[in-house]
Amino acid sequence: MIPLIKNPDKSKWDELARRPVVENALLEKTVKKILAKVKAQGDKALKKITKELDGVKLKKIAVTDKEIKAAASLMPEELKEAIQQAKANIEKFHSRQTEGNNEIEIIPGIKCWRKSVGIEKVGIYIPGGSAPLFSTVLMLGVPAQIAGCREIVLCTPPLKDGNIHPAILYTATLCGIKNIFKVGGSQAIAAMAYGTETIPKVFKIFGPGNQYVTCAKQLVQLENVAIDMPAGPSELLVIADDKAIPEFVAADLLSQAEHGTDSQVIVATTSESIAEKVQYSIKEQLKELPRKKIATQALKNSKIILFQNLRDAIEFSNLYAPEHLIIACENANELSGQVISAGSVFIGNYSPESAGDYASGTNHTLPTTGYAAMYSGVSVDSFVKKISFQALSQSGLQHIGKSVELMAEAEGLQAHANAISIRLKK
Amino acid sequence: MIPLIKNPDKSKWDELARRPVVENALLEKTVKKILAKVKAQGDKALKKITKELDGVKLKKIAVTDKEIKAAASLMPEELKEAIQQAKANIEKFHSRQTEGNNEIEIIPGIKCWRKSVGIEKVGIYIPGGSAPLFSTVLMLGVPAQIAGCREIVLCTPPLKDGNIHPAILYTATLCGIKNIFKVGGSQAIAAMAYGTETIPKVFKIFGPGNQYVTCAKQLVQLENVAIDMPAGPSELLVIADDKAIPEFVAADLLSQAEHGTDSQVIVATTSESIAEKVQYSIKEQLKELPRKKIATQALKNSKIILFQNLRDAIEFSNLYAPEHLIIACENANELSGQVISAGSVFIGNYSPESAGDYASGTNHTLPTTGYAAMYSGVSVDSFVKKISFQALSQSGLQHIGKSVELMAEAEGLQAHANAISIRLKK
Repeated sequence: MIPLIKNPDKSKWDELARRPVVENALLEKTVKKILAKVKAQGDKALKKITKELDGVKLKKIAVTDKEIKAAASLMPEELKEAIQQAKANIEKFHSRQTEGNNEIEIIPGIKCWRKSVGIEKVGIYIPGGSAPLFSTVLMLGVPAQIAGCREIVLCTPPLKDGNIHPAILYTATLCGIKNIFKVGGSQAIAAMAYGTETIPKVFKIFGPGNQYVTCAKQLVQLENVAIDMPAGPSELLVIADDKAIPEFVAADLLSQAEHGTDSQVIVATTSESIAEKVQYSIKEQLKELPRKKIATQALKNSKIILFQNLRDAIEFSNLYAPEHLIIACENANELSGQVISAGSVFIGNYSPESAGDYASGTNHTLPTTGYAAMYSGVSVDSFVKKISFQALSQSGLQHIGKSVELMAEAEGLQAHANAISIRLKK
Repeated sequence: MIPLIKNPDKSKWDELARRPVVENALLEKTVKKILAKVKAQGDKALKKITKELDGVKLKKIAVTDKEIKAAASLMPEELKEAIQQAKANIEKFHSRQTEGNNEIEIIPGIKCWRKSVGIEKVGIYIPGGSAPLFSTVLMLGVPAQIAGCREIVLCTPPLKDGNIHPAILYTATLCGIKNIFKVGGSQAIAAMAYGTETIPKVFKIFGPGNQYVTCAKQLVQLENVAIDMPAGPSELLVIADDKAIPEFVAADLLSQAEHGTDSQVIVATTSESIAEKVQYSIKEQLKELPRKKIATQALKNSKIILFQNLRDAIEFSNLYAPEHLIIACENANELSGQVISAGSVFIGNYSPESAGDYASGTNHTLPTTGYAAMYSGVSVDSFVKKISFQALSQSGLQHIGKSVELMAEAEGLQAHANAISIRLKK
């Protein structure tokens, strides 16, 4: 059962906010071996590793047009509509993230601006395993498309029968993604980072994954490839006052806990009565859950913390920097203004995390493990470079020339000064 | 002398765009040792390493208020004014990078928005060595201040006499930076990543540095600290047609080459006559240069490439993805629209790189080594997290509830569906 911690002293907060550390000494060694193999042998290595690790003998690594076309007919009509509705909302939110013309005349004769240009080639990793995460295809495919990325590559591990789940193929097609490959794990990251005969090399790799995928992303990041962000187990913190509805809070906690045994859920509450009701309701709801075992294990990493007041609860939440934050309080909207560290915030009793996971419009690829203190979730920003431009006229240069000369000389950089002087003399 | 390569076949372009690889097998080992020492012994380690590596026996690590106050009086009035003018321009350009209210009603009852919040604690590294880079203090301090970062820490190595150059102290003070410490190299990165008795731990570390600093930044990035971007030697590519002014191009190339022996400069031109005149002018201008030795060495990594037409020259530039790109062509403005990979672009004969290095308003902390293909230069974006928010009313949730349930169930995540169902039933 999820433990209740009452009014912890502030000196204990750091410890309470700490994530469990997963030690895996062999991990990096294993992943380095796989990266090296794919780099050296390309497709041959991918087929060999996929046979060894996924137990699938691949004839072709690339998904064929025929497979893509068949996918739509294998999908229930109402699921297709649901995906389309989600896509429309995600598009609506993300299309506001593009930057328009922002030219500024700094002083007469000096114009500066920034232009967003889609990263030419991007790679999207979609985990396989227990669930076909087609929602993540939307969350990465939609902003990539809005950003104007010219080439979008998608890798996802094959099912035991050598196919990709039709919902993934259907959603990828909706997002205009045509290059889909049946490769998973760190071998997929290697393929997108280095390129193989079949899989194009990309400039930036996105997407969640297990610790092998995460380790591979961190390693290839040292070799001229960018990644979206460091990723860890999923998290939820709920701030609840006495107006929270315990059954809702319990359902939200379980929706997070079912992700994986390493998921972490925390309740920061000012009401002991709510805390106890949440504990009870978790027990009740857990009974019916297909992924009961996983959720039960995850709840062991979790805690309900009782605080003296909401100010402390928010302060603790900012210290913890949760991936997802639900504010189930009477003044949720007002309190949300005090959030300074979180990935995505859900305001009020009718804003469950699942809404944002699928269809409210916001992105669900978010910083975990405390990284919300310094990273943002994925957005259109993640798929573009913002290039700066400046155009100076002769008189524009005259206005700042003297300053540049003085500063360059003071920094001991005479050639920097000369590049100005030679022009001013003209 | 800088070599001229005429009309290279496209099959050779990749090789021509490649950066020289600097191998240093001992580097990581040395840096790891320094990181471990600072993590374990804090200030004591900093003092010991500073004595060993910088030859300076520090009494106090923190710069005192007295030292800060004294700095302004040690500076020539006209240099102070130059720095103030540069700061005003940088502020003007960067203050447009903040995001205003962007709330969207996705569908009735569902409101989503993003809020930019300054990263609470940031660290700025300013290299020492041959030049006091106070301009970098502006380039990092100004956006940090605009972003609203609450705590800004600055580390820079002490001069031989144990002081910090007054221009660095003066500029830091202008940017509202009060926490200034006399530590350089990888030990400074360690101090900001882990915190010591004197130096506060920060969430993100910015700033250029030598290969030790860069290696340290990459290593601490694996330990819950973010960094601005991977950094390498500085670069400039100039696209020149027959309307370019050879003396200007030569001066720009030298301004880049004087940075360090590993700097790289490239000219992509359509005019053999301009190429030859640039070669000649470099030889002439080099004679007078205080940093002649450094520049001469750097020019050995450099090349002038002759292309058949400007389309090829731009295509090569996009492949190379230069940190700085000068377009010294008649139709510079039009051509700039075809740039898809570069850090900062300088348009026309009167837009030298030095202008952007100091005072045009754009940022000079830019992606190198081809990273302009996937990274942006530093901006206010780099100093904020963009947190997403969503507020659903009961009816808003009803609009998307069915879709979320269907998608969650199809992903095998029943508890996600339950978090909706339990609310819809209410």
